[in-house]
Amino acid sequence: MKVGIVNVTGYAGLELARLLQSHPEVELTQVTGRSAVGQRLSDVFPHLTGKDLEILPEIVDPVDLVFSALPHKASAEAVAPLVKAGIRVVDISADFRLRNLDIYEKWYQTKHPAPELLQEAVYGSPELHRDDIMRARLVASPGCYPTSAILGMAPVVHLVEPDIIIDSKSGVSGSGRTLTLTNHYSEVNESCQAYSLGGHRHLPEIVQELSWARERGSDVAGKGSLSVIFVPHLVPMTRGILSTIYCRLAIDVPMSDIRERYRQFYHNAPFVRIVDRPPQTKHVWGSNYCVIYPTLDPRTNRLVVISCIDNLVKGASGQAVQCMNLMAGFDEKLGLEATPIYP
Amino acid sequence: MKVGIVNVTGYAGLELARLLQSHPEVELTQVTGRSAVGQRLSDVFPHLTGKDLEILPEIVDPVDLVFSALPHKASAEAVAPLVKAGIRVVDISADFRLRNLDIYEKWYQTKHPAPELLQEAVYGSPELHRDDIMRARLVASPGCYPTSAILGMAPVVHLVEPDIIIDSKSGVSGSGRTLTLTNHYSEVNESCQAYSLGGHRHLPEIVQELSWARERGSDVAGKGSLSVIFVPHLVPMTRGILSTIYCRLAIDVPMSDIRERYRQFYHNAPFVRIVDRPPQTKHVWGSNYCVIYPTLDPRTNRLVVISCIDNLVKGASGQAVQCMNLMAGFDEKLGLEATPIYP
Amino acid sequence: MKVGIVNVTGYAGLELARLLQSHPEVELTQVTGRSAVGQRLSDVFPHLTGKDLEILPEIVDPVDLVFSALPHKASAEAVAPLVKAGIRVVDISADFRLRNLDIYEKWYQTKHPAPELLQEAVYGSPELHRDDIMRARLVASPGCYPTSAILGMAPVVHLVEPDIIIDSKSGVSGSGRTLTLTNHYSEVNESCQAYSLGGHRHLPEIVQELSWARERGSDVAGKGSLSVIFVPHLVPMTRGILSTIYCRLAIDVPMSDIRERYRQFYHNAPFVRIVDRPPQTKHVWGSNYCVIYPTLDPRTNRLVVISCIDNLVKGASGQAVQCMNLMAGFDEKLGLEATPIYP
Amino acid sequence: MKVGIVNVTGYAGLELARLLQSHPEVELTQVTGRSAVGQRLSDVFPHLTGKDLEILPEIVDPVDLVFSALPHKASAEAVAPLVKAGIRVVDISADFRLRNLDIYEKWYQTKHPAPELLQEAVYGSPELHRDDIMRARLVASPGCYPTSAILGMAPVVHLVEPDIIIDSKSGVSGSGRTLTLTNHYSEVNESCQAYSLGGHRHLPEIVQELSWARERGSDVAGKGSLSVIFVPHLVPMTRGILSTIYCRLAIDVPMSDIRERYRQFYHNAPFVRIVDRPPQTKHVWGSNYCVIYPTLDPRTNRLVVISCIDNLVKGASGQAVQCMNLMAGFDEKLGLEATPIYP
Repeated sequence: MKVGIVNVTGYAGLELARLLQSHPEVELTQVTGRSAVGQRLSDVFPHLTGKDLEILPEIVDPVDLVFSALPHKASAEAVAPLVKAGIRVVDISADFRLRNLDIYEKWYQTKHPAPELLQEAVYGSPELHRDDIMRARLVASPGCYPTSAILGMAPVVHLVEPDIIIDSKSGVSGSGRTLTLTNHYSEVNESCQAYSLGGHRHLPEIVQELSWARERGSDVAGKGSLSVIFVPHLVPMTRGILSTIYCRLAIDVPMSDIRERYRQFYHNAPFVRIVDRPPQTKHVWGSNYCVIYPTLDPRTNRLVVISCIDNLVKGASGQAVQCMNLMAGFDEKLGLEATPIYP
Repeated sequence: MKVGIVNVTGYAGLELARLLQSHPEVELTQVTGRSAVGQRLSDVFPHLTGKDLEILPEIVDPVDLVFSALPHKASAEAVAPLVKAGIRVVDISADFRLRNLDIYEKWYQTKHPAPELLQEAVYGSPELHRDDIMRARLVASPGCYPTSAILGMAPVVHLVEPDIIIDSKSGVSGSGRTLTLTNHYSEVNESCQAYSLGGHRHLPEIVQELSWARERGSDVAGKGSLSVIFVPHLVPMTRGILSTIYCRLAIDVPMSDIRERYRQFYHNAPFVRIVDRPPQTKHVWGSNYCVIYPTLDPRTNRLVVISCIDNLVKGASGQAVQCMNLMAGFDEKLGLEATPIYP
Repeated sequence: MKVGIVNVTGYAGLELARLLQSHPEVELTQVTGRSAVGQRLSDVFPHLTGKDLEILPEIVDPVDLVFSALPHKASAEAVAPLVKAGIRVVDISADFRLRNLDIYEKWYQTKHPAPELLQEAVYGSPELHRDDIMRARLVASPGCYPTSAILGMAPVVHLVEPDIIIDSKSGVSGSGRTLTLTNHYSEVNESCQAYSLGGHRHLPEIVQELSWARERGSDVAGKGSLSVIFVPHLVPMTRGILSTIYCRLAIDVPMSDIRERYRQFYHNAPFVRIVDRPPQTKHVWGSNYCVIYPTLDPRTNRLVVISCIDNLVKGASGQAVQCMNLMAGFDEKLGLEATPIYP
Repeated sequence: MKVGIVNVTGYAGLELARLLQSHPEVELTQVTGRSAVGQRLSDVFPHLTGKDLEILPEIVDPVDLVFSALPHKASAEAVAPLVKAGIRVVDISADFRLRNLDIYEKWYQTKHPAPELLQEAVYGSPELHRDDIMRARLVASPGCYPTSAILGMAPVVHLVEPDIIIDSKSGVSGSGRTLTLTNHYSEVNESCQAYSLGGHRHLPEIVQELSWARERGSDVAGKGSLSVIFVPHLVPMTRGILSTIYCRLAIDVPMSDIRERYRQFYHNAPFVRIVDRPPQTKHVWGSNYCVIYPTLDPRTNRLVVISCIDNLVKGASGQAVQCMNLMAGFDEKLGLEATPIYP
């Protein structure tokens, strides 16, 4: 299958290139960039040891599928014509993740360039929407924080009180390759901070998907709307997200049942692992795995769920490749089975 | 004033030595160690550029005040005789922090070596117990996590529902100088993890002091017992604690009032600063400051409080010196006014 | 091919397990440990997502090849009987790297447990000894520092004055998983240090192999014995070695010729890349590549060579697998073609 | 004494502000910035807990001394008029460090804005030019790398062969607060690199001062011109420089004599410490100390000198304050005696 990457020069684009260069069924034939146009991939990114492509201004030759790693708005502008021309697209930007146009335009403070595609786009979480992804022309690959939060709560969101606290800790690569003070080494090294306390753009995705999962679950916890508070933090590491999720069970079930529900929910999900001891982000470093540790606080009876991913793999490009595998009818795991790198 | 340090060879002891060597009213005359006895301080710790003392097996000559940086149990055993001999003591261990003997013995799984001193000991949080500290013979310097949590909630704990979530992120020096896998560089670098999900020993301190502050506050939020969940996390940095605290106001007051209550509460506290933007731990690195950012989540109406300290200074040895200043009648700030080091 | 790992529980052993679990021609059937015997691999090392083996006290069932990741002395004791029993062995310890028994016993301060195997053992640098490795029963996989230094100098060591300075910077994983103050997070984070200034055990390997390469080269620079000074440094990162090598050309050739010699020397070496700009260790992170940048200092006319590897892959377990590939007649690159992970 | 800082908003300027706010004889009365003009210091830099000044476009009121932390060229343009107006100046930029105008204009690729001040300016290394600094109107505070290299070699440069190799490892703050890919967190974390292999601008300073020290020493090693190769490296830490210097003694003296010469040379230098074991940069973190470890390689008879500083203190702003102390007739150590922070 011939594949192109739009905007290979950011971290999500680079990670796509890394993954696709060793994918057994894919030929990466074209890459575009917003910078470095005309240069060769390996000149700008010497770690890329595979096929050496020239960075183009835009996709010019026929491909079967395109990944877009452009920022929001620019991405919809670039991929809408491709979708309409019959090319399947996995969009890593936020443009097609939210079903509701108003919510998109409020949170992203911009007019949506292609609202006509919103209803058709599938939220690219294979663990929740596998069948829809297989049939989709346009997949919206989830945000990094939402991936950790949604996978952490989806199996039980219909069993808990509709009041969820998500405290996430992310490595710095999540802020991208664009230069800012919040990714300046000396500013973030040996420091920890909370940010976006007024509301982070990943919140509406989390609410949308967890509400969907809640509706879909059996009706034990009522159908009232979900209240979610999400506070992201920056910690001094390059990769990794750990989300700590606090909620309260609405029903009385033993923890062993809860753990079993998680296992059931993900029994067909090759990249989700339910673990018995608190995980660390290093356990998934460089891999497409998500490890989840649900536990009950013995004193307050709260359910606490720890969920870890590599923000650039399962939180971005790995998950996008997983969607591509489903869209193309490949084994979901193809090209994604690398063991996490430890230490 | 002549001062001794019992167990100078751990990080709290070393930080005491650093601070005391430049304290204008203190002469550090004796230091003891559990290791390195007989060696000179500067041979074992080349960064210590002040007066060079020999590391003794125990305090032998008269001193006016002793700091103990021993682990719990060993500390009570060492300082009880000193207190009884009339020497004032600031104990950095957990031995005299909990008023309730049963709670101590349950959480620390050991018999208390000197229960007769428990009622007399003062919890060494100058912002809460300044007057008692001034008169105390024995001060129990608070734990690092409790310091960040208690200072973050004390001004409003009587105004919130009695259900508090504390999600703390700590640098690795909090685990001490003793060698373990959880402070092995390659195991914790580039990784983030939650730990002690079954209950961390710092929880009962937090409950004790916040309950006290709640009782003391006006009766708007009822006097029901406090439910606190506390989840500590390890992040890859040497120093710093950031606590993110989630709760819900029990009364309807605007955020400006809340902020003002914080300012009022700490108007005599030289080391606590209420800030208007989310802080980072780097803002207090190497200093005795605690910075606190309270804010209201606009969607869920939850109060979120961010509280940052340097775990080895305000979270341990700096706060201990602050207590010593009060006990000795010095200016509370003496020897502690170093500006945080940034970047 | 059935393969076993002796001492899987250190970093070299773990890295072998990671690499072998995805090797298409290898079945990892047995692993032993000095600790954690009786536990399952994935319980002790949750990142290992492949086949889950029990950690045994020793290799019990037939295998075709054994890797030993034991420390020196213990390794020779363990593998000598295996070699004699006809099992091919790749030893990651230092026991069979030095041809000269006296040098071994002087530097390692111990009697060699199996000196009779020294002459037969092949130094496992595929770029220097490919043919011998293919035929070997016992391969001594090189040390991490020597790999970076030898590959950096081998193409030109016969063209330079016999006076070489090697200044190496290593990540902390090189010191292993055993707990010491030099791999305690708070001691090494945000710090840089030189060590082993009296002589590091990797020096005799470097001298042995560079002397061999020098003898083998044409006679332009004389055959006098080589003087090498090697100073290792610890830098705060988990993986990576960067060696900066200083020497002086003994002949007058333009830099373009030098660069061409490097390219020629390694034209059959799939994992060595000669680059045109100064590399960083991140360019090889997690991979088996070695990148080398030779340049001439314009003012002093010294040749400066920068050589980067991942110390746990090309510097240890990846190179060992590369040797195994050669011994088994596989493609040298099999199982080792992962692209470096960046950022 | 009233003091101003020109360009407080970079790391050198901020470090000056931190140091001066606690200097007992200095009142910091004015600060200027190239950005953030009109804002208050504590709004932009929340760690600054001292006197809160407004960031001005330029120095407007009378001060006794001005520090300039502007980049080269801009700095000379700004301070030349001040010097001529009779204000004493310590310039942290490179503009007045090089005695030779041609060398300056060649290395900095610009016309010097105030060449008439070059002969008068004093190179601000108190250990080499104490008396001249005391009398100076204009002091050129040394570069960070040169400080570590010059202090490491000055005591013996006249005793060694004129062929010196300086391999330096620096923290990332040395590249300043301006955003570049080389200080982007994800690009430099967990990585090590050499740079400026074609020649770093700090080289001519090193040559100038070591040549001066060599001329001044007794004539044992001849007066031939000095050949110096200097290769800087970036390591993933915020602060600290460690220089490893390789040379060869031209005379036959025992190492104990060499060490004694170092001690003699610096016996009046309160911030230089000659140590008996290899130091790490953490031993001087946050302080104005330079620690130096000279040793003889037992195999090659080379002299190896390790020299450590905090690049922002002794390598920039601390040394500048030390110069100010000398210029003002204060104790050289005033305001600079903070103990290094460890861990």
